[in-house]
Amino acid sequence: TDHWEVAGRRFTSRLIVGTGKYKDYAQNAAAAEASGAEIVTVAVRRVNVMDRSQPMLTDFLDPKRFTYLPNTAGCFTADDAIRTLRLAREAGGWNLVKLEVLGEARTLYPEMAETLKATEILVKDGFDVMVYCADDPIAAKRLEEAGAAAIMPLGSLIGSGLGIQNPVTLRLIIENAKVPVLVDAGVGTASDAAVAMELGCAGVLMNTAIAEAKDPIMMARAMKLAVESGRLAYRAGRMGKRRYADPSSPLAGLI
Amino acid sequence: TDHWEVAGRRFTSRLIVGTGKYKDYAQNAAAAEASGAEIVTVAVRRVNVMDRSQPMLTDFLDPKRFTYLPNTAGCFTADDAIRTLRLAREAGGWNLVKLEVLGEARTLYPEMAETLKATEILVKDGFDVMVYCADDPIAAKRLEEAGAAAIMPLGSLIGSGLGIQNPVTLRLIIENAKVPVLVDAGVGTASDAAVAMELGCAGVLMNTAIAEAKDPIMMARAMKLAVESGRLAYRAGRMGKRRYADPSSPLAGLI
Amino acid sequence: TDHWEVAGRRFTSRLIVGTGKYKDYAQNAAAAEASGAEIVTVAVRRVNVMDRSQPMLTDFLDPKRFTYLPNTAGCFTADDAIRTLRLAREAGGWNLVKLEVLGEARTLYPEMAETLKATEILVKDGFDVMVYCADDPIAAKRLEEAGAAAIMPLGSLIGSGLGIQNPVTLRLIIENAKVPVLVDAGVGTASDAAVAMELGCAGVLMNTAIAEAKDPIMMARAMKLAVESGRLAYRAGRMGKRRYADPSSPLAGLI
Amino acid sequence: TDHWEVAGRRFTSRLIVGTGKYKDYAQNAAAAEASGAEIVTVAVRRVNVMDRSQPMLTDFLDPKRFTYLPNTAGCFTADDAIRTLRLAREAGGWNLVKLEVLGEARTLYPEMAETLKATEILVKDGFDVMVYCADDPIAAKRLEEAGAAAIMPLGSLIGSGLGIQNPVTLRLIIENAKVPVLVDAGVGTASDAAVAMELGCAGVLMNTAIAEAKDPIMMARAMKLAVESGRLAYRAGRMGKRRYADPSSPLAGLI
Repeated sequence: TDHWEVAGRRFTSRLIVGTGKYKDYAQNAAAAEASGAEIVTVAVRRVNVMDRSQPMLTDFLDPKRFTYLPNTAGCFTADDAIRTLRLAREAGGWNLVKLEVLGEARTLYPEMAETLKATEILVKDGFDVMVYCADDPIAAKRLEEAGAAAIMPLGSLIGSGLGIQNPVTLRLIIENAKVPVLVDAGVGTASDAAVAMELGCAGVLMNTAIAEAKDPIMMARAMKLAVESGRLAYRAGRMGKRRYADPSSPLAGLI
Repeated sequence: TDHWEVAGRRFTSRLIVGTGKYKDYAQNAAAAEASGAEIVTVAVRRVNVMDRSQPMLTDFLDPKRFTYLPNTAGCFTADDAIRTLRLAREAGGWNLVKLEVLGEARTLYPEMAETLKATEILVKDGFDVMVYCADDPIAAKRLEEAGAAAIMPLGSLIGSGLGIQNPVTLRLIIENAKVPVLVDAGVGTASDAAVAMELGCAGVLMNTAIAEAKDPIMMARAMKLAVESGRLAYRAGRMGKRRYADPSSPLAGLI
Repeated sequence: TDHWEVAGRRFTSRLIVGTGKYKDYAQNAAAAEASGAEIVTVAVRRVNVMDRSQPMLTDFLDPKRFTYLPNTAGCFTADDAIRTLRLAREAGGWNLVKLEVLGEARTLYPEMAETLKATEILVKDGFDVMVYCADDPIAAKRLEEAGAAAIMPLGSLIGSGLGIQNPVTLRLIIENAKVPVLVDAGVGTASDAAVAMELGCAGVLMNTAIAEAKDPIMMARAMKLAVESGRLAYRAGRMGKRRYADPSSPLAGLI
Repeated sequence: TDHWEVAGRRFTSRLIVGTGKYKDYAQNAAAAEASGAEIVTVAVRRVNVMDRSQPMLTDFLDPKRFTYLPNTAGCFTADDAIRTLRLAREAGGWNLVKLEVLGEARTLYPEMAETLKATEILVKDGFDVMVYCADDPIAAKRLEEAGAAAIMPLGSLIGSGLGIQNPVTLRLIIENAKVPVLVDAGVGTASDAAVAMELGCAGVLMNTAIAEAKDPIMMARAMKLAVESGRLAYRAGRMGKRRYADPSSPLAGLI
């Protein structure tokens, strides 16, 4: 059956969901459940996954059922991101991580030089690093050469909901990568997720599109189906486009 | 549970599939099955549903399980379309029908004056008429006033696979209609179907996008999920769009 | 030199401007001047071109320099539009007119059945009729068959500034017409006008995009150049699109 | 009057044209003339501007009338680009240069790490460096911090004619830059150039869109007007967009 692999782990679901912006951990857990996700990503600097004296996400989302993917949201330097992930590994044993090193608060766009530097160090340090990055085919290749376990270009700005802005650069990255490519950020609604998958990527990561929907649980279900439908459409091979009409049946008929 | 109704009949699936361009009736039936459709539309001038001496579609697609929706594909005048549907009703008892009166072979664009005329006559004649039409909000309203059971504007040209060309006019038609609006024609891949549903329409009709996919059965499954995901996303209420980034979690953190 | 003709009259400018929404007639005249337009269209039910006791547009825009094109803005039936144009012809002698018969105030979308009826009557009545219409290739053909002097499909809703929503239907109309096709309504900024012209239409009519710009005179100048640039690009024949890069010069070099 | 400045030089034309892919130098010169460009960019590794024993571009395009902007097309490392520009400066005295360091031949996408390194060295070396770059707002800021005289993000791949793929990232770069931002690469036709200018950039650089048009001289004229129209539209301040129609004149009338 259709699946994808990252760092030797095998997954069937191609949707990774976040753990920010929800009303509470219960709603977050219900949305993750509805999404069918096997991986949830956690901003280890903000979400409590270590302090047992406080409510913990892990009480709601069972780490035995969900793969926890610690991320470095809020880190603006390689050093900060590396320190954050080392602390997380010590506390939780997590080795598969999502690196993001941001360039500024206004756009949350990745700082690619620091991102590459952090990738190199983390890879040497034994981490399996999935990397949030610009939709820059060359920079993406450099991350792969540095040992990234997965390439995660943005579809559009984090939390913007603007959808897939540049399908051309995503296609170029996908065509050229030997590791999984996942679209990370920018999805606003179901069709955006389907578009991403139709480009041939391995998966999609999203948070705001689900958490800020009027009904997050229903949207989580929508996203599950959207990712599956886009994947199936990619595999099925879409029809060509035509400039003129083409009848569903020959113009000469029976009657 | 979520459902829609047309002419007093209730359906759960919002995907209507066609019966043209398939390799054979067996493949057509398998695709219809995979699509989850409850309604299949049949060009009664081309598809054999009446002559028992020849292979019949009904032998593959059980009319007890699927609602057959006879259509007038290939008719270029109101008279021709009316005659075709009367013959179909006599032969098969079908009262719920899909009217299309085409303006020319090049574009298969509807001829709206003839379409309105045919709608009026068929409605008086007791038919429940679902009507293929231009994405013209005024013409759509006239069809509804004439008694159409459903309004079916094109997303783009029949068989073109160009997707939803004009979401504005479709939105205007949907906002203003009291009968179901279904996007008929133009869908090329899964995300197109999701986009149509996200506009708030009641359903989508397609044929070529499934029949001409490299793997029609897999694409039928993709379309099932795409329609469901777009519907859920519409109901869930998508997030707003932002010009700048918005972090998934507050910028100040725990560590 | 490049020009176009309608009803035996020859024009060099391909931009027709409106006469609504301006601060005053002086600003309107300055914008028309800056636009390079040779034709200005006037809603004869709203703009004073007949009552000499009041300020008149004709005092600001010399009818000897500009061709006045009376239009039927605000008419919702064929009868109303016909009566309006007959009054205008009696008062001002205008024979070249722009017909619009609207379906509703919400969208100002044309009512095509009434539009066709009015076209037929006005043509018999000796008018040269330029017709605002839906982007419906079949309905456009019927107008031409009824004797319309020019076909004027909307790019998007009047006053919406949404640009060219459906280039496919506009292209089909242009390919199939023997009379001039002008995009009427929907242009919001300069690139929209260029897009319209690149489709091969004979001209563009606009009002709000100029009148509601922060600086209408400067925008009028922008639109003049945009229409000219789009026309030249259409005639020059654009390069093909490529999926990959193509260097401006061979990869082997001199140094 | 409206103008822009780079490295202390003042220009009125906002269109920079290339010197590759033309039939011969004469056609190239005629196109440059028609474009109104004041700057022409030259791939110093391919175009002969130094060897007096061969036909020279400078015989056709007078260096006294046109500012020559040497570029490093075909360079895939910082070292290569730096060496090329030093040779060019020795030979021709050119100090204002366009740097491009490419990542691969398939996409001609910039290699941003090498580009930044080369920028730093060239700036220290006294060059005024205009820099071809990815549409990455953070990387663009780094170039500016390194002393780039102008930032030149791609609209889409060099020679692709795909137009402005990602207006969001271009807008972010423009909003945040204190040096001129010019869109370099990707323009296919006139409306693409207008779109770029409407985003507020200082100028546009193109080569293939003119050189590969069926009539390059006419397309050069189209591009001149497109750039001017887009600039004027930006300065004039476009109308807002509306979801519904807005009449050009009040619905109540005179008649």
